[in-house]
Amino acid sequence: MSKPPFSFQLEAYQGRARAGKFQTPHGELLTPVFAPVGTQASVKSLTPIHLTDLGASLILANTYHLYLRPGDQIIAEMGGLHQFMQWLGPLLTDSGGFQVFSLAKNRSIDQDGVTFRSHIDGSLHRFGPDKAISIQENLGADIIMTFDECADPNDKAYSQQAMSRTHTWAERCLQVKTRSDQALFGIVQGGIFEDLRRESAEFIAGLGFPGIAIGGLSVGETKSEMHNILELVDQVLPEDKPRYLMGVGTPEDLVNGVRRGIDIFDCVLPTRLARHNAAMTRYGNRLNVVNAKYATDPRPIDEVCQCYTCENFSRSYLRHLILAKEILSATLLSIHNLHTLITLVNDIRQAILINEFDNFVGEYFHQRKLALLDEDDN
Amino acid sequence: MSKPPFSFQLEAYQGRARAGKFQTPHGELLTPVFAPVGTQASVKSLTPIHLTDLGASLILANTYHLYLRPGDQIIAEMGGLHQFMQWLGPLLTDSGGFQVFSLAKNRSIDQDGVTFRSHIDGSLHRFGPDKAISIQENLGADIIMTFDECADPNDKAYSQQAMSRTHTWAERCLQVKTRSDQALFGIVQGGIFEDLRRESAEFIAGLGFPGIAIGGLSVGETKSEMHNILELVDQVLPEDKPRYLMGVGTPEDLVNGVRRGIDIFDCVLPTRLARHNAAMTRYGNRLNVVNAKYATDPRPIDEVCQCYTCENFSRSYLRHLILAKEILSATLLSIHNLHTLITLVNDIRQAILINEFDNFVGEYFHQRKLALLDEDDN
Repeated sequence: MSKPPFSFQLEAYQGRARAGKFQTPHGELLTPVFAPVGTQASVKSLTPIHLTDLGASLILANTYHLYLRPGDQIIAEMGGLHQFMQWLGPLLTDSGGFQVFSLAKNRSIDQDGVTFRSHIDGSLHRFGPDKAISIQENLGADIIMTFDECADPNDKAYSQQAMSRTHTWAERCLQVKTRSDQALFGIVQGGIFEDLRRESAEFIAGLGFPGIAIGGLSVGETKSEMHNILELVDQVLPEDKPRYLMGVGTPEDLVNGVRRGIDIFDCVLPTRLARHNAAMTRYGNRLNVVNAKYATDPRPIDEVCQCYTCENFSRSYLRHLILAKEILSATLLSIHNLHTLITLVNDIRQAILINEFDNFVGEYFHQRKLALLDEDDN
Repeated sequence: MSKPPFSFQLEAYQGRARAGKFQTPHGELLTPVFAPVGTQASVKSLTPIHLTDLGASLILANTYHLYLRPGDQIIAEMGGLHQFMQWLGPLLTDSGGFQVFSLAKNRSIDQDGVTFRSHIDGSLHRFGPDKAISIQENLGADIIMTFDECADPNDKAYSQQAMSRTHTWAERCLQVKTRSDQALFGIVQGGIFEDLRRESAEFIAGLGFPGIAIGGLSVGETKSEMHNILELVDQVLPEDKPRYLMGVGTPEDLVNGVRRGIDIFDCVLPTRLARHNAAMTRYGNRLNVVNAKYATDPRPIDEVCQCYTCENFSRSYLRHLILAKEILSATLLSIHNLHTLITLVNDIRQAILINEFDNFVGEYFHQRKLALLDEDDN
């Protein structure tokens, strides 16, 4: 018997950590999963072949950017986002909420949505739940998001107001959604405030979404505040739905997120750091590849890494590409950085499946401590 | 019995056009061949995997650039240029002459070489035949070039002087060369002047190089002047050595060059046009991919092209990448443009092998006329 669309099967638990499978119309996601970000329908500097070779399974694209350029109507006419960018695996689009509140100019918020000016050309636009769903239906990703408002996480009055609007908009998104081949995820908001987060998690959980996202984190709060909120939300959310921690993160954030019940992550960090000449490592330290000490260093970024970049190129060559302003440096560093995170979540998944995740976590933070101590020797 | 290093075997002739095989320590080149340019040890925006997938067989890198940055000593320490850039097939380096005369600042030329300032940081340097060979031996390409002076092709007095120095330097390069695993090619100069070109071709041919380059073309003369010089030089050069037309060219230049006895070409055009949003076509017309008429054009750049870009991506998507300033546009257009030239020389080679090159040329220029007439309909 074929599985229902968007079924989520939990294969194994260890503590709060989960290994699962999420069905989408474009293939099965093995969770935990890390999604590279293709903001403008391109994971910067990489072809879809690179992404497939890296073992990427889920790609995120940004509704706000694609609405403004080239326009969701054009993408629909071109056969939808999968066809347009030739990523034929599972795709996720955000709702545009985060970008409207972080990038757009002259925002004016009311109960029904947000009026704003484009950060590109200053043109006037309006987003609300109806529009966010309509755009995401034009784009056609497998996982789409409710329209939400991301407040300053430390401002309680604003967090409460934004959460309340986010809840109203979540209900509206469910009502106006028309496509059955897209899984709409609700978003929990509430800043760093336990009472708000509990209220939000309960409200969103009650609406019956096939998956639930935790928004408004990794936006200015401390790590321990983030962990506290994740633990609290984990207690409230249904076990049988995938949980998506939006915009996170670093290697250690992935380990810490999975420990607190998270299944899906996305972050621009690996590709953004690549364009700023930084190589990520599994244990969180970063190599500034342009450092003069690498000028004649024949070693790869990481001697045990099995990515294309590390199997072929020296630090010396990568440094040269950066200094010579060769675009290839962004491609090679993006490959390495994405490989680092994708390999890490795959290893986490395996550890959960064989009931070794606790040991994995212990060993991970032990190695991380050594790596950070060792940083100056790289 | 194994072939001697750098043996050149002619497999077929048709008119002056030749199909051959040139042995190098890093593999056999099937000629005619077009070499993508990797100026700074990177064919801009492409990985070596892209180049292999494109069927590239010979890559050119620039001595002047690599000497200045990262430095030929560093590349030697890193195991040589093949290892450094991970291009494990045949490599060619130029002598630096052309760049010293076109890019460097405050040049001062004498009989023994050129003193100049770096275009990067203004530092003072000196190139001559000894230095050009020493750098190229550090880089370790399979084919290396004598140090030459590229004059204004229309200035006879200067062309004569430059040719004379080029001859002296060619002899000196032969004397100081130490590595037996590199084929040193001599360079014919002489501008657009028949008497100078004949003298130069005779002189260079007399020195016994394993291959001969024709320099100082495609630098400001007319196409018919270039063809005239190629025909003249073809009469003088030995048949049994490969001929390399430096810095050329466009699709029609390749056809016109092969008709006049040329075996090897290189040009930055395909990758440079890619970074300026232009797609090349087999018959010489160019698509400005950013044109508004492509905004909703679902067709690939070229409906019969079998490159990765054309098999996967629409004009609409490519235009979007350009407008959104996504680096991927340079990668995808470079793949298409290089595929166009590499496929063209491969087809030329096949046509020569089956004695159909005359028909090929007739059909090529017929199709080219139609394509240029049709340009506005693209």
